[in-house]
Amino acid sequence: MTDKKMWDGRFSGEIDELVLDYTESTEVDRCFYKQDIACSKAHARMLARQGVLTEEEAEQLVHGLDRVRSEIEQGAFVWRKDLEDVHMNVEHRLTELVGKVGQKLHTGRSRNDQVAADFRMYVSEKLESWSAGLWQMIRGLSLQAGAHQETLLPGYTHLQPAQPVTLAQHLLAYVQMFKRDFERIEDCQKRVRVSPLGAAALAGTTYPLDPAFTAAQLGFDRVFANSMDAVSDRDFVLEGLFVAGVIMNHLSRFCEELILWSNPNFGFLRLPDGFATGSSIMPQKKNPDVPELMRGKAGQVLGDLVALFTVLKGLPLTYNRDLQEDKQGFIRTDKCLDSSLRIMAAMTKVLVFDPDRMRRAMKSGFLNATELADYLVHKGLPFREAHRITGRLVALAEDKGLGLEDLGLKELKGVSRVIDEDVYAALDYQAAVARRKVPGGTGFEAVGFQLKEVEKWLEDKKGSCAGGSV
Amino acid sequence: MTDKKMWDGRFSGEIDELVLDYTESTEVDRCFYKQDIACSKAHARMLARQGVLTEEEAEQLVHGLDRVRSEIEQGAFVWRKDLEDVHMNVEHRLTELVGKVGQKLHTGRSRNDQVAADFRMYVSEKLESWSAGLWQMIRGLSLQAGAHQETLLPGYTHLQPAQPVTLAQHLLAYVQMFKRDFERIEDCQKRVRVSPLGAAALAGTTYPLDPAFTAAQLGFDRVFANSMDAVSDRDFVLEGLFVAGVIMNHLSRFCEELILWSNPNFGFLRLPDGFATGSSIMPQKKNPDVPELMRGKAGQVLGDLVALFTVLKGLPLTYNRDLQEDKQGFIRTDKCLDSSLRIMAAMTKVLVFDPDRMRRAMKSGFLNATELADYLVHKGLPFREAHRITGRLVALAEDKGLGLEDLGLKELKGVSRVIDEDVYAALDYQAAVARRKVPGGTGFEAVGFQLKEVEKWLEDKKGSCAGGSV
Amino acid sequence: MTDKKMWDGRFSGEIDELVLDYTESTEVDRCFYKQDIACSKAHARMLARQGVLTEEEAEQLVHGLDRVRSEIEQGAFVWRKDLEDVHMNVEHRLTELVGKVGQKLHTGRSRNDQVAADFRMYVSEKLESWSAGLWQMIRGLSLQAGAHQETLLPGYTHLQPAQPVTLAQHLLAYVQMFKRDFERIEDCQKRVRVSPLGAAALAGTTYPLDPAFTAAQLGFDRVFANSMDAVSDRDFVLEGLFVAGVIMNHLSRFCEELILWSNPNFGFLRLPDGFATGSSIMPQKKNPDVPELMRGKAGQVLGDLVALFTVLKGLPLTYNRDLQEDKQGFIRTDKCLDSSLRIMAAMTKVLVFDPDRMRRAMKSGFLNATELADYLVHKGLPFREAHRITGRLVALAEDKGLGLEDLGLKELKGVSRVIDEDVYAALDYQAAVARRKVPGGTGFEAVGFQLKEVEKWLEDKKGSCAGGSV
Amino acid sequence: MTDKKMWDGRFSGEIDELVLDYTESTEVDRCFYKQDIACSKAHARMLARQGVLTEEEAEQLVHGLDRVRSEIEQGAFVWRKDLEDVHMNVEHRLTELVGKVGQKLHTGRSRNDQVAADFRMYVSEKLESWSAGLWQMIRGLSLQAGAHQETLLPGYTHLQPAQPVTLAQHLLAYVQMFKRDFERIEDCQKRVRVSPLGAAALAGTTYPLDPAFTAAQLGFDRVFANSMDAVSDRDFVLEGLFVAGVIMNHLSRFCEELILWSNPNFGFLRLPDGFATGSSIMPQKKNPDVPELMRGKAGQVLGDLVALFTVLKGLPLTYNRDLQEDKQGFIRTDKCLDSSLRIMAAMTKVLVFDPDRMRRAMKSGFLNATELADYLVHKGLPFREAHRITGRLVALAEDKGLGLEDLGLKELKGVSRVIDEDVYAALDYQAAVARRKVPGGTGFEAVGFQLKEVEKWLEDKKGSCAGGSV
Repeated sequence: MTDKKMWDGRFSGEIDELVLDYTESTEVDRCFYKQDIACSKAHARMLARQGVLTEEEAEQLVHGLDRVRSEIEQGAFVWRKDLEDVHMNVEHRLTELVGKVGQKLHTGRSRNDQVAADFRMYVSEKLESWSAGLWQMIRGLSLQAGAHQETLLPGYTHLQPAQPVTLAQHLLAYVQMFKRDFERIEDCQKRVRVSPLGAAALAGTTYPLDPAFTAAQLGFDRVFANSMDAVSDRDFVLEGLFVAGVIMNHLSRFCEELILWSNPNFGFLRLPDGFATGSSIMPQKKNPDVPELMRGKAGQVLGDLVALFTVLKGLPLTYNRDLQEDKQGFIRTDKCLDSSLRIMAAMTKVLVFDPDRMRRAMKSGFLNATELADYLVHKGLPFREAHRITGRLVALAEDKGLGLEDLGLKELKGVSRVIDEDVYAALDYQAAVARRKVPGGTGFEAVGFQLKEVEKWLEDKKGSCAGGSV
Repeated sequence: MTDKKMWDGRFSGEIDELVLDYTESTEVDRCFYKQDIACSKAHARMLARQGVLTEEEAEQLVHGLDRVRSEIEQGAFVWRKDLEDVHMNVEHRLTELVGKVGQKLHTGRSRNDQVAADFRMYVSEKLESWSAGLWQMIRGLSLQAGAHQETLLPGYTHLQPAQPVTLAQHLLAYVQMFKRDFERIEDCQKRVRVSPLGAAALAGTTYPLDPAFTAAQLGFDRVFANSMDAVSDRDFVLEGLFVAGVIMNHLSRFCEELILWSNPNFGFLRLPDGFATGSSIMPQKKNPDVPELMRGKAGQVLGDLVALFTVLKGLPLTYNRDLQEDKQGFIRTDKCLDSSLRIMAAMTKVLVFDPDRMRRAMKSGFLNATELADYLVHKGLPFREAHRITGRLVALAEDKGLGLEDLGLKELKGVSRVIDEDVYAALDYQAAVARRKVPGGTGFEAVGFQLKEVEKWLEDKKGSCAGGSV
Repeated sequence: MTDKKMWDGRFSGEIDELVLDYTESTEVDRCFYKQDIACSKAHARMLARQGVLTEEEAEQLVHGLDRVRSEIEQGAFVWRKDLEDVHMNVEHRLTELVGKVGQKLHTGRSRNDQVAADFRMYVSEKLESWSAGLWQMIRGLSLQAGAHQETLLPGYTHLQPAQPVTLAQHLLAYVQMFKRDFERIEDCQKRVRVSPLGAAALAGTTYPLDPAFTAAQLGFDRVFANSMDAVSDRDFVLEGLFVAGVIMNHLSRFCEELILWSNPNFGFLRLPDGFATGSSIMPQKKNPDVPELMRGKAGQVLGDLVALFTVLKGLPLTYNRDLQEDKQGFIRTDKCLDSSLRIMAAMTKVLVFDPDRMRRAMKSGFLNATELADYLVHKGLPFREAHRITGRLVALAEDKGLGLEDLGLKELKGVSRVIDEDVYAALDYQAAVARRKVPGGTGFEAVGFQLKEVEKWLEDKKGSCAGGSV
Repeated sequence: MTDKKMWDGRFSGEIDELVLDYTESTEVDRCFYKQDIACSKAHARMLARQGVLTEEEAEQLVHGLDRVRSEIEQGAFVWRKDLEDVHMNVEHRLTELVGKVGQKLHTGRSRNDQVAADFRMYVSEKLESWSAGLWQMIRGLSLQAGAHQETLLPGYTHLQPAQPVTLAQHLLAYVQMFKRDFERIEDCQKRVRVSPLGAAALAGTTYPLDPAFTAAQLGFDRVFANSMDAVSDRDFVLEGLFVAGVIMNHLSRFCEELILWSNPNFGFLRLPDGFATGSSIMPQKKNPDVPELMRGKAGQVLGDLVALFTVLKGLPLTYNRDLQEDKQGFIRTDKCLDSSLRIMAAMTKVLVFDPDRMRRAMKSGFLNATELADYLVHKGLPFREAHRITGRLVALAEDKGLGLEDLGLKELKGVSRVIDEDVYAALDYQAAVARRKVPGGTGFEAVGFQLKEVEKWLEDKKGSCAGGSV
């Protein structure tokens, strides 16, 4: 069962290669090339503005950097892992292209502030993309909610039928979750969009740099306040991973429901073909693969969060190489979250619900029991007593295999004299929903109000999230 | 090695008792009694205002609730775990005290919205206390930084001597971390201080409640938008735990440094007696127990965060009993974090540093090598070349057991002709620090500026964090 | 919304008290008193045997320690947190009782090896208790499996109906999980039951101790091999927490199914009254509270595992105070796991299944589709082709609202000529199960064989797990 | 700061592509091709042996599978992600090569048991490789320990100097950790090397398969006992990840020490050139990059463990698509752990220690204080009293800036009359170490004994771990 090539031939050449693979980060951080080049261009311009470089030198550098970017984007660039990382790869090629002046680019900076700047720009862009994904997700939910304002659904607590709600109300609960996530991203950006450029290795630099200028050029909102913090802070990644973890958790809850509702015993939902797959052995199967996978992927994102927390715990100032382990997790999480949002938004828009199955499930669960209890309270009983009486009537109906609404008035009165003919109106499901007029409740008007609020929100955020292209 | 009482005698009575212990939450949620009673009072007043109760009934309830609170605070209250939780314990005693009207209190609400409200108030108060702790911590750091603006310290990257910095700059890096934490708490509060009262079990209620009134009475900033979300949302706890985790991580980094610096090979620091302990076997020991424990406790808080993430993953709407597992972790984390902040703030204020040991460590680590490289760049060499030349000179000095500043001009010129007499000024540590004038850098002025900013911030936040009592 | 007592009045007395609370561990480790006293008695006897103490002194110590234990067990012992931990509390009281000789007990040992020994004994006992819990759990499952060898159940993959199985086969899958857990505990014990006594603070001791004697007295299986490892190793706790985490995960999967099956849309199960509770607002509810809570508690145990991993990461040798954070998590996990196993074992024995609902669910899900495909393969078609044909027939039946077995022979032949009258026998559910004769499969005989194996296993392990008291 | 291509143009084609990327696993599971083909060959042979296929058909399949393997290994195979996974890719190509008989290969199996078998073989091989890595690591440590049996080192508790030990003893503590890890892998293998083949989709199969034959052909130790468990069990992955997590934690502790010891204030160690790197800005730096990175990677492995725990929690039987998320984490962990072990083993062998620096550190820390206390006990004082007296003498020496051994007899006697001329022998460091004769202690003989045990162990395991090639 084993493969015998391993662990023998321990020549130092082999180990050198292994160490190189172990320590180099080009494989991972080459995806920051755009950010890295943008930072270098801004740095070069700032150096010229401050008189550290001549205008001509800066021009040469900027032009050279543009050429490097072109080469990368045209696939003509040769990445060398012996150059360790994206920064050295870019600078090395730059120097080949522009000559000795290329070496002046690194004046007044260090890879410590450089990588932090690249990564912050990268994270910020990804957060924007997540916001756009959330916008689409919320839009999908609100479209379905709009279409299902009258659709009744058994509301569950403990996965037991509790009270009738509308499908719209249920879907709008998720809208609230994703709106919170959207807010959290906005808050997180305040701490991401801070430029570390100028902190150099850890202590700042002796060159007369203008960090505010570089930051402004690159679209950062703020400049670092302390150079030692600037190069060792990775809170912004932790916070990004946390926000992602919460979003994935919200998605996992929605997935769980899609999986339950697709089970034929529920039958509330038929998953659209593109999002479900068959079985290689069981010809009748239609499996909710996409929601299952997405539910599972919530685990991965939590893992990435834990990993970084553990990396950072107990690290002394300032930069330590452990910090190199900050990127893979974020990149993986971004890939997972961004596609999860896009796919779930698209899927949500085409979900086909089965209101008939929902209604049947609602009826078989005494979902109007609370109505009866409330009815008794309206008749003047204290709530706890009304609760006890209703319990007795539910048991009675269950014994007879009937719904509460099917019990005769005499039977009802037998348990409590205060019950009267008007009880049947109270037991109607539609009416039960209508009666929950409290703001935020499942009543039709309250739901209509929520829907309008969401639409307004979607309109407000449209510009930043979706261009004109929705 | 075993104890033989376990697992035999499996009588159902024993199991019943076991299940009761397993499911009851009074042990944990009784610490919410103040919040629970406050919510009930606000609810009663609102019910009267809306005409659901008479003014007289509301008065009786409010008065009764005040008596329950008194009994609890005087230790006269008998907590019964068979009443399951704080809500039922309070309501049960209330009904004993005020009679049948006590049962009317539960009208239009459910334990689902009640526990969410109690918990949100509780979390919000704890977050305020954490903010106050951060304020003290920042104050402690800024006091020490103020006293050590001239103290030089070897700045480390990779735990290797890198460049000279001031102790003030080092401590102010932590100020930045804790200020971000403070900001994060403010952001988190926006999502904590939302009232769920009125959501009832999951669907809202048929009574003409006024959730906005109750929310305002209790000092909430907003009212829930969707009832199903209101009873199943625990994001606010996750976010609180995350913020706590980040703070503990920051503390753990500081602890790591205190531990390192207390080691006699470093010797930068002597821990104050109250925060270190001896050994039962080794009479010479002075152990940094408090920082060690605090570093360890960062693990616990991460564990609590992971626990809740895992609890919430994949839960269908709305309330599920799994959610009962949301409290212990937060309470534990609060206990840990709040005392960690208080203790570390107090300890920070009385830390005694040893500038002499710091200076010796700085000298033995070629901490002016970067100065030499920069000097060479000022003389017109490209940075990469200056770096190579300096490397050669460091090797030369190391061979001779000297510092760079101890090499003769001839030796220096032997490696690079551009070096001149003015190199010795460049190699001076004090001057090296002074030269790092870039905003946010370790230069004396830049640090002075940071200090003023912190003092302003402390003044601004003083009212909300520390009363007049600092 | 805030409580104003916090964070003011920062008198050093208050801080001292706070630090004492922060660092003392008596609250937690007093639960090791039995182990601590047993270790001390063995140590005293060994010291006498080696001539370090006189026999008389050892007698006095042993006798005194027995008195301390009595006092503790009779509630007469006063625990003092200023004495820091269980060891000092016990020794202090011992010295009060026996005078100056009490101070000699600590000869040749340290709290570092002492706490490790206490904790290892404690963990070992808890692991034994978990094994006993697993035994009960397996017994409960095997009793139910024995009773349901003929009960048919829709087997799910992707929570979609897949193939008919027996309820026995389903329950026996859990037996396999818990048997693996049992094995894992046995493996873990090999690394727990190693005595660290004699390692002293970190380096061993100069007294002529006999660690093998002490270990044997206390029932340990092995003696430590390296003193520095002995005082800093906490792998045994990690491994215990890991094993607990896996068990809780297995329980959480079972809980998920109990919750699903209790939902009226499934209706496969009625939870016994002692393990479900009602709703304070909805009189018809019967909530699966115990399985929900247990599912949630899996999160807590994972949290405890993560916490300890994070504590241990990157700790230099040997003992560090961070290690004090190793106990609470294990104690919490033990409390959770031990009661979970006892409760679930008891619940499993009294679960009432509804075979009729299972059968109905099975029929509505084309659970004999694989049978049809296999039938076609037996008729000579390649599997992939048989799969395609069956798919077409499922679609046909679905359109007509029929089961496959309700399609006429002509209709069947219309899709594939190889189908014949014998197809109906193939489509029978009972027969379908019977046909899966492969060892380990769901066929009746194969299940019967599994059951016998389990009974044999239960018998084998009975002595060690359950005394004669089952 | 943003990239505008995202999230617009939401054409269904684009989504289809996205879903395909999201759900396909070829990218990951193609690394199982060897295992997959081996399983298929064994399955084909078994089918022939049982009469389900003809011998000729089986020959065709086996031959075809060998060709597929060749194509893959020669880079001639075209992986198609639209074929979803490694199984379908292989089977598809097989059918192209051998025609219709290719479709018969899938008879009596499912991707559910197939993927479990592939993965189990893969994990088992990786565990073997880890064992080999541990063997090398232990060998490296024992070589260094052998060379440093006489080298004295300050033993630390709380990172404070405690008692003198030998460097050998310190390194042998790690040997114990890695030996436990080795044992854990052996235990884990018992649960990994179980064949699931024959379980089919979940229920077993109607074909007369012989799972024992297939298992034996593939080198598995056991056959599954329950088909439903066989396809949904992923404990073996969890356990593998846990074992890896513990190993990485052990490595992280060693890394922490290498980093500390490389700091010039310690100076105990000079990292070999191949394992440290320079700075782009600070020419004097020699950074312990490899140990730092390795310490950081411990976080990643913990993250992978948490991820899978979270994926598995609460999953109902049997196979769910969430389980597809089991592979990436293990593959990533394997890559990390396997190279970490190889690199650290190689690095350990070439570490260069500085005994002189160790000795100096030892002297400045009163590392003979325990000796003095023990000396006093030998003179008849109770331990607690001896401890107090020593404490007073340490304070006295500290005040005078002397070591204990430098105090005059008169000064010593001034504090305790029992002290005599022989105290100076007791205070000698070398003698102090020699005196710790207790088995497992730091005494020279005790360490010699440990070393012999390790060498014996290395010899015993040589065959299975290292071929003849060490």
